[in-house]
Amino acid sequence: MASIDGVLETALYVDDLDRADRFYADVLGLARLYSDTRMRAFAAGARSVLLLFRRGASLETVRMAGGTIPPHDGSGPLHVAFAVAAEQLPLWRERLRAANIAIEGQTTWPRGGQSIYFRDPDGHLLELATPGLWAVY
Amino acid sequence: MASIDGVLETALYVDDLDRADRFYADVLGLARLYSDTRMRAFAAGARSVLLLFRRGASLETVRMAGGTIPPHDGSGPLHVAFAVAAEQLPLWRERLRAANIAIEGQTTWPRGGQSIYFRDPDGHLLELATPGLWAVY
Repeated sequence: MASIDGVLETALYVDDLDRADRFYADVLGLARLYSDTRMRAFAAGARSVLLLFRRGASLETVRMAGGTIPPHDGSGPLHVAFAVAAEQLPLWRERLRAANIAIEGQTTWPRGGQSIYFRDPDGHLLELATPGLWAVY
Repeated sequence: MASIDGVLETALYVDDLDRADRFYADVLGLARLYSDTRMRAFAAGARSVLLLFRRGASLETVRMAGGTIPPHDGSGPLHVAFAVAAEQLPLWRERLRAANIAIEGQTTWPRGGQSIYFRDPDGHLLELATPGLWAVY
């Protein structure tokens, strides 16, 4: 029975790779895994990789020694949620305030988790969510 | 020190919610967590939730008893990679063949992992990747 262990990579498409890189590294504190002029990859916890692609730069098939990666791209303000521990949420509010990033929305979920919402420099809607949102979290 | 535990939610935007739902439930075998006329949520392993939004349906702020969810949306063939165990890859090739889904690309990574690439009904580029792709996987 074929099964899936989890989402490994989530991709966002950005206008300015260096600007986005600074945001995800410096404000969100993600560890850089890979960097070139076309893309960046960040570790966002165990087995969670956030990919940033320069918009338009992933529209051609990538041909490497090991094979090919087909084209993809995106526009619009996409959405990604990150898992954070409940006791981390006050620290995140403080960090976002220090970075002058506005909290655009917040939610207390029926199951008990809490979320805060804000934007990255490209307008993507980011969420920090504490456990108790989904049955699997 | 504020920290992130992982990517919790990855969102795709689709033209036909029922068609996409059938693909993710029946072909990829993901378990449905939530369903309405605006969106679907699927469990893709522990603490990994895949969200499908009807394109345009998430462009208005959602106001609920617990708070608000700001707008987001997307277009273009986005990219999501799922983690699968190495011994699962042959089973996935067989399942995709049985569902008449073409493998559009494949890669053997320098660190030893393998990936196969195919499309969902909306043209999003999906990847199944075995361990040995990233330093964190």
